[in-house]
Amino acid sequence: MSKCKYVIGVDFGTESGRAVLVETKTGQETATAIYPYKHAVIDEILPMEGEPVKLEPEWALQDPEDYIRTFQKTIPDVLARAGIHPEDIIGIGIDFTACTMLPVKNDGTPLCMLAEYSRNPHAWVKLWKHHAAQPEANKINAAARQRGEKWLDRYGGKISSEWFFAKALQILDEAPEIYTAADRLIEAADWVVWQLTGVEKRNSCTAGYKAMWSKRDGFPKNDFFRSLDPRFEKVIDEKMNRSICSIGEKAGELTAQAAEWTGLREGTAVAVANVDAHVSVPAATVTEPGRMVMIMGTSICHMLLGDEEQAVEGMCGVVEDGITPGLFGYEAGQSGVGDIFAWFVNNCIPEEYKNEAIDSGMGVHQLLEHKAASQKPGQHGLLALDWWNGNRSVLVDVDLSGLLIGATLATKPEDIYRALIEATAYGTRVIIEAFEKNGVRVDELVACGGLPEQNKMLMQIYADVTGKNIKISSSKQTPALGSAMFGAVAAGKKAGGYDTIVETARHMTRLKAEMYQPIPENQKIYERLYAEYVKLHDYFGRGGNNIMKTLKQIRDAAG
Amino acid sequence: MSKCKYVIGVDFGTESGRAVLVETKTGQETATAIYPYKHAVIDEILPMEGEPVKLEPEWALQDPEDYIRTFQKTIPDVLARAGIHPEDIIGIGIDFTACTMLPVKNDGTPLCMLAEYSRNPHAWVKLWKHHAAQPEANKINAAARQRGEKWLDRYGGKISSEWFFAKALQILDEAPEIYTAADRLIEAADWVVWQLTGVEKRNSCTAGYKAMWSKRDGFPKNDFFRSLDPRFEKVIDEKMNRSICSIGEKAGELTAQAAEWTGLREGTAVAVANVDAHVSVPAATVTEPGRMVMIMGTSICHMLLGDEEQAVEGMCGVVEDGITPGLFGYEAGQSGVGDIFAWFVNNCIPEEYKNEAIDSGMGVHQLLEHKAASQKPGQHGLLALDWWNGNRSVLVDVDLSGLLIGATLATKPEDIYRALIEATAYGTRVIIEAFEKNGVRVDELVACGGLPEQNKMLMQIYADVTGKNIKISSSKQTPALGSAMFGAVAAGKKAGGYDTIVETARHMTRLKAEMYQPIPENQKIYERLYAEYVKLHDYFGRGGNNIMKTLKQIRDAAG
Repeated sequence: MSKCKYVIGVDFGTESGRAVLVETKTGQETATAIYPYKHAVIDEILPMEGEPVKLEPEWALQDPEDYIRTFQKTIPDVLARAGIHPEDIIGIGIDFTACTMLPVKNDGTPLCMLAEYSRNPHAWVKLWKHHAAQPEANKINAAARQRGEKWLDRYGGKISSEWFFAKALQILDEAPEIYTAADRLIEAADWVVWQLTGVEKRNSCTAGYKAMWSKRDGFPKNDFFRSLDPRFEKVIDEKMNRSICSIGEKAGELTAQAAEWTGLREGTAVAVANVDAHVSVPAATVTEPGRMVMIMGTSICHMLLGDEEQAVEGMCGVVEDGITPGLFGYEAGQSGVGDIFAWFVNNCIPEEYKNEAIDSGMGVHQLLEHKAASQKPGQHGLLALDWWNGNRSVLVDVDLSGLLIGATLATKPEDIYRALIEATAYGTRVIIEAFEKNGVRVDELVACGGLPEQNKMLMQIYADVTGKNIKISSSKQTPALGSAMFGAVAAGKKAGGYDTIVETARHMTRLKAEMYQPIPENQKIYERLYAEYVKLHDYFGRGGNNIMKTLKQIRDAAG
Repeated sequence: MSKCKYVIGVDFGTESGRAVLVETKTGQETATAIYPYKHAVIDEILPMEGEPVKLEPEWALQDPEDYIRTFQKTIPDVLARAGIHPEDIIGIGIDFTACTMLPVKNDGTPLCMLAEYSRNPHAWVKLWKHHAAQPEANKINAAARQRGEKWLDRYGGKISSEWFFAKALQILDEAPEIYTAADRLIEAADWVVWQLTGVEKRNSCTAGYKAMWSKRDGFPKNDFFRSLDPRFEKVIDEKMNRSICSIGEKAGELTAQAAEWTGLREGTAVAVANVDAHVSVPAATVTEPGRMVMIMGTSICHMLLGDEEQAVEGMCGVVEDGITPGLFGYEAGQSGVGDIFAWFVNNCIPEEYKNEAIDSGMGVHQLLEHKAASQKPGQHGLLALDWWNGNRSVLVDVDLSGLLIGATLATKPEDIYRALIEATAYGTRVIIEAFEKNGVRVDELVACGGLPEQNKMLMQIYADVTGKNIKISSSKQTPALGSAMFGAVAAGKKAGGYDTIVETARHMTRLKAEMYQPIPENQKIYERLYAEYVKLHDYFGRGGNNIMKTLKQIRDAAG
């Protein structure tokens, strides 16, 4: 009998980093450790001595040293907890938020770690939710539309201010000296792999989803970048790399220094970097077309594999090798889901409900679920548009806002709560139908993330509204598990890992026994309600009535 | 110097009756007494011994003995409090909710007071908010439309289930034995005057607003009633009276028995009955065209005088001599105003706000006003349709419901509160514009009722949204004061009263010194927001999208 081998996945989140140590044969998650970043999200002042450097609104930065500390704290921790010898750790993989990017020198040193640049906010890591590059995103979109850039179709017709070139162009616009000083502009995902391996390897996932790269066409042409700014013409060749590694490849091996940080063996295989949502797909058992993964939390990411590249309205992106090698990875999303329910519970729940929750030993969400679960579909008489945080797919419009219709003097908090949940389910159905309409199959849904654990009513509503079976991933930490799985592929079969992610998923992942199936009598009512949702969705979302934008304009003028 | 003379007004509300004793020269309100009805609103079981008689949903009854007890309790009380000799009370007037009606014998005895009928709910008083006669109202509306009845225009094209013939026809439909046993069907307003004077005198206000009577054309023709039901053909001649007394006339004099009940002098002048909203108009200083009275509480009644009869969309009614003799009285209304704010405070206010209100010694409404008052118009980014309780004017549609649009994750309770207040102000502006569009002048607004006292922000918003100056009645009990004023007219000048209500209003009423004037910079923003409100109002209210009705249908099918 061969000895057990292990892999480590490190998931770099918004507030903390997490390492999971996983047994390669069974996928058993043996130990977990979390490091809450010292500086977490930097959105007010730079974390420095001396005269404070204040940030503008919409800024969100991070400190790259927090990433190194994540390795230093969590990996020795999981090794110690599990009592595993470093020799038995055969590989490591990481996933990251994206696009989270930073300017560095040729040797990988972040500019923010150099005294001469550290007081310039543009020298720091721009976190995914840094939203101050909207003017640059607008410029990129306008130029791409005007020039008829074909790559725009792969991103639902619009790129986001969160993405790579918007952020890079903002550095050039606002801090040309930082742009000039930066030898490299790089995703934090690739940067941490560089720190582990000593080699700069860029991954196909962030390149594809966040930097308009495709396996077939590469990056947009230099003259497109020149059209944005002459100084931006050679951004790829001067600051980036045209050589993109497919996820699933090995990036390199652990350096002596990284071995010292982590307590792992020098030479341990390191996987090409990946992104949290994307790495969750195989971790949720999905390595083939037809099964959509929903990562359900504050927002929902909808991840789907396809055999071909199709243009689907309002998706975030389609990238060959973007999720698993050899297939086209589709990503779509809803920008507000759990966030909306949290807003409701924080702002709209009367004292009696709080007290009732405390008296019955429930959380407020649980109490609301309990009260709403006995209702039949449609019984509350309400309908909502789930746009409290704008609409990502399929309308791709941050200026849309939330709507509730049907309120009467008899409307109760649990009615609104249920209507909000239903609205997010309708939003998911719109996305599914956009895929299906364009020939990308969606046969069943696989859910992971926090929400499926917390709210059975919600899951049943999603099944009833979409008419699809919903299965649940058995892992509560799919991103870290997925990263570990790519570590096993980087290590390879000989070392005790696997040769492909498909094979890895077969061994290391499973679904829960429970499954949510559509209930036909509920489906019938939700058909009618969904038709009403679509009518409102199109009226307010496709220009029939632009009141949501007008209200925001009036609000901004007043503020 | 002549000795002071006094009049008494008795206001019959939904839950209680109230008497006010007023000095005729100055209108000073010298004493007030309230009698909470023993049986208040009867909506579950009849208040009787023996096997309980349960009521169907939507029923709302009253006990006529509560009205007699109101006279017996409150009038002696105000006399005692004020220390006034009955000789110095020269007149009495009453106002009532309407349509509140009952079946009685020829001698005025209510059928519910006779043992043989008392266990039949149809023998009792049907209160204004008895809503179980909707099928009859539908039948009346359909027949009137089909026959092209011209009187329908005077009621905005639709009569309500609350009105006289809907209620009368429900008795005939469901309890023909009660219909047959009833010698008279009569407004409770006229019935209490009958009890005071011994004579049946019917008033022009309820006849006009609730029983489709007009000074020029009388009641609808017998063949219209026959078209509803052959047994209903002669309802006017058999159960009612074609002789209608104008409000402002004297109905009669206090009988010996009524003098005994009240402690007043036998022979004291009694005014023709009146309705709470209508009698408030002269009490709020208004006896001429151009000044709209808004009675602002749970709902708003909009009362306006005009020189001519005009058809105005969606108004509740136009009646010659309906408010003051010699003019056309227009009534319109919003079915939910204070009710919506109360719903919001009861269902949507988090614990922290309740605690903050307690800590700062405010009510929750006051706290929300405090938090919202510093906002500029439009700053919250929200807009609402104020239809939580349907729409009375101008759409006349109980199946409409509430809408909130523009919510984001940053939306706060005070934002929604302010948006709801603004929505009711937009609703009032729609009504004002309907009048103005049809040549009925609205030069300024005069507010009375509970809301103007409670919320200065609300009043300023109404001024800013409507672009009209708003003055405030100085009386907090305008209906009772108005009734007392009609008592002074019934007594006449010789007795120490007045000859006309115009003259009475000049002496007995006043406005507060404070006035709300539109602030031009706010008006400018509200112009834009109101345009958005009207667009939504018409889209959801005039058939562009019938989702509100669909949601109610689905709700009713589910329930």
